[in-house]
Amino acid sequence: MTLADAAEELVRLGTDFHRRSWMLGTSGNLSVVLARDPLRVAITASSIDKGRMHPRQILEIDNQGVMMRAAEGKPSAETLLHLEVIRSIGAGAVMHTHSVWTTVLSDYHHANGGFHIEGYEMLKGLEGVHTHEHREWIPVLDNNQDMSILAAQAQELFAAHSNIHGLLVRRHGMYTWGKDLATAARHVEILEFLMEAVGRRQMMEPQFS
Amino acid sequence: MTLADAAEELVRLGTDFHRRSWMLGTSGNLSVVLARDPLRVAITASSIDKGRMHPRQILEIDNQGVMMRAAEGKPSAETLLHLEVIRSIGAGAVMHTHSVWTTVLSDYHHANGGFHIEGYEMLKGLEGVHTHEHREWIPVLDNNQDMSILAAQAQELFAAHSNIHGLLVRRHGMYTWGKDLATAARHVEILEFLMEAVGRRQMMEPQFS
Amino acid sequence: MTLADAAEELVRLGTDFHRRSWMLGTSGNLSVVLARDPLRVAITASSIDKGRMHPRQILEIDNQGVMMRAAEGKPSAETLLHLEVIRSIGAGAVMHTHSVWTTVLSDYHHANGGFHIEGYEMLKGLEGVHTHEHREWIPVLDNNQDMSILAAQAQELFAAHSNIHGLLVRRHGMYTWGKDLATAARHVEILEFLMEAVGRRQMMEPQFS
Amino acid sequence: MTLADAAEELVRLGTDFHRRSWMLGTSGNLSVVLARDPLRVAITASSIDKGRMHPRQILEIDNQGVMMRAAEGKPSAETLLHLEVIRSIGAGAVMHTHSVWTTVLSDYHHANGGFHIEGYEMLKGLEGVHTHEHREWIPVLDNNQDMSILAAQAQELFAAHSNIHGLLVRRHGMYTWGKDLATAARHVEILEFLMEAVGRRQMMEPQFS
Repeated sequence: MTLADAAEELVRLGTDFHRRSWMLGTSGNLSVVLARDPLRVAITASSIDKGRMHPRQILEIDNQGVMMRAAEGKPSAETLLHLEVIRSIGAGAVMHTHSVWTTVLSDYHHANGGFHIEGYEMLKGLEGVHTHEHREWIPVLDNNQDMSILAAQAQELFAAHSNIHGLLVRRHGMYTWGKDLATAARHVEILEFLMEAVGRRQMMEPQFS
Repeated sequence: MTLADAAEELVRLGTDFHRRSWMLGTSGNLSVVLARDPLRVAITASSIDKGRMHPRQILEIDNQGVMMRAAEGKPSAETLLHLEVIRSIGAGAVMHTHSVWTTVLSDYHHANGGFHIEGYEMLKGLEGVHTHEHREWIPVLDNNQDMSILAAQAQELFAAHSNIHGLLVRRHGMYTWGKDLATAARHVEILEFLMEAVGRRQMMEPQFS
Repeated sequence: MTLADAAEELVRLGTDFHRRSWMLGTSGNLSVVLARDPLRVAITASSIDKGRMHPRQILEIDNQGVMMRAAEGKPSAETLLHLEVIRSIGAGAVMHTHSVWTTVLSDYHHANGGFHIEGYEMLKGLEGVHTHEHREWIPVLDNNQDMSILAAQAQELFAAHSNIHGLLVRRHGMYTWGKDLATAARHVEILEFLMEAVGRRQMMEPQFS
Repeated sequence: MTLADAAEELVRLGTDFHRRSWMLGTSGNLSVVLARDPLRVAITASSIDKGRMHPRQILEIDNQGVMMRAAEGKPSAETLLHLEVIRSIGAGAVMHTHSVWTTVLSDYHHANGGFHIEGYEMLKGLEGVHTHEHREWIPVLDNNQDMSILAAQAQELFAAHSNIHGLLVRRHGMYTWGKDLATAARHVEILEFLMEAVGRRQMMEPQFS
């Protein structure tokens, strides 16, 4: 994938996620692997308005998060967590979104370190899941402005839970990923759907969990 | 109806239902009868992204679900349930959607095998219903990855309840149908509206059901 | 206003209200006065899909609801209630919509015959209201398939409450109106907003009303 | 910034906020500073439909709210509060919106004079906030049709709380601002997101606050 193709796709996805209220204001960032050896990644620049993105705001970085060519803006601190997901999981694309439901559930469940989503057909939209009789663990990390700490916690998490498809950061948002852009973008849709479904299910019957 | 016309209409409907969050990711499938004798049906291929559908992903199948001509993709296992609805009910089109409200209500009511929707004017949007003083039974089947079991349960259901307009599968979604595409698509809108209305009505007054 | 201009505006409004889920399926109807003496009214035909309206589906009727010229379709029974609002209130346009929140609140409050909305700034969007310190009565009529009964109940209501801006029919929807199309359409937006606000306010604190 | 550029941007923002249901009917108003010395401000005219705005409805006013050139319409009474924000805070743009969630929360919290939003990553979308460990005070003023009283209360508020980014008026809506239009518009998105998140968080667990 060329940087130009990646930039066009990331702008399309970011604009769509903004419209759906999953990346409001300057929140969130999206990345896709351009080459593996050596690693080169296309990623949204820091602090750009997701409702008015353009391709010049997509940066090309190396495996340390250093920019490889001139562009508009610079990488955000959260680039570290994108690179950790790419390294630990082998992901080809990483999506970091901020929706209302992921924010609410990350707060509600953080004391237990996360929660399970189980028995929903929509789980089959997650790569490698072939039955609704699947028990998906959604870990919740504490938020931290020091992204090296968050990245280290994510690394531990991936070592302990090799088969997760996303994670939440408390009162912050979601990270999900996939082997390629289409898979990662589908995981955003699937996980957002599941979050809203389990959130509304619980509100209908407060003693339910 | 030609396959080309059917493909165009199914893409239009699928794209619209994706936009409304009723067929996110690769979830759901839509079908329409092209000819009765012998039966030929146009149906969405398995595992296609409903946000980026194109007409080549609409398949023509026979009464066993076998593809009648080359196309992009293959039928999903849920084709069996579409064919059962077409046979048992005589439907001309079948819509299988996955919305948040149908998912939530299917779980809430599954222990009772379903629930009634009664007294709503919007029920008159269902074919053959001419007054709000109608009591519509919404059955809920347990989910199952073996579609031959689900199809057999649906067949029993249709024998016992000849006048239903849709059914839910637990934590999965809705099947509805109609004599033609326009009727089936209207039933999706009507039933989605009614699900949200009864869901919110109950949340306003938890002891209410 | 010519019938052609009225048809164009009613199609625009109906399409917009469908998109906002206030006139799903074939639900709802819209009308506007073309001339007063003798009365001629443009109104949406019965049972048309509000997502795919076109100007040929707008009918011209007289003060008895009789069609004045050939068109696609025929008047719905609810035309009687539109004509009652035009006669009793002197309205220049009438909007009948079916939203989730009006449906839910009409059911919740019907035992009291209605409810008040008071203290909201948005009330000033209703014609003739100049302060938030206004107490708007929202009457709820029982639903009835005999529109002559509903029209007679509305006539009584208008005699008793000359300053209302809309009414609900239980588990059915809303009627609102205005001196012209723009005012009536604004009343739909304003009342829908207020319904959602009072509905969510109450859900936040169940003992609250 | 010229009046023509300001008008184009205010129409774009108002149309977008209407589409998102934050400025329904004729509610709300938007302004931007054109020059500081002497002060000249572009502001939306009173009582215009936010779904059908056009640039001729954007007025140029001086520091007393007096119109500086002919245009369509006149300033609304709320212009006084815009000018107070511009003077007291030094804001370059002011946005006054009416959403469901700000309306609901303004009512719920008004007895305490406001509420805190704390610990959310999205707070970093507010100018000058660099960590989620921020405690943002959201003051709630009582509504009043005398805008000189509201403006005086806002002046006191700004003196006591120099670091707030917005305020609510009870059962009315939100005022927010920024150094320029893009910042003020981002603050609308960020605060609307946070209001919905804290509102839904509380509904999930009623004893929570």
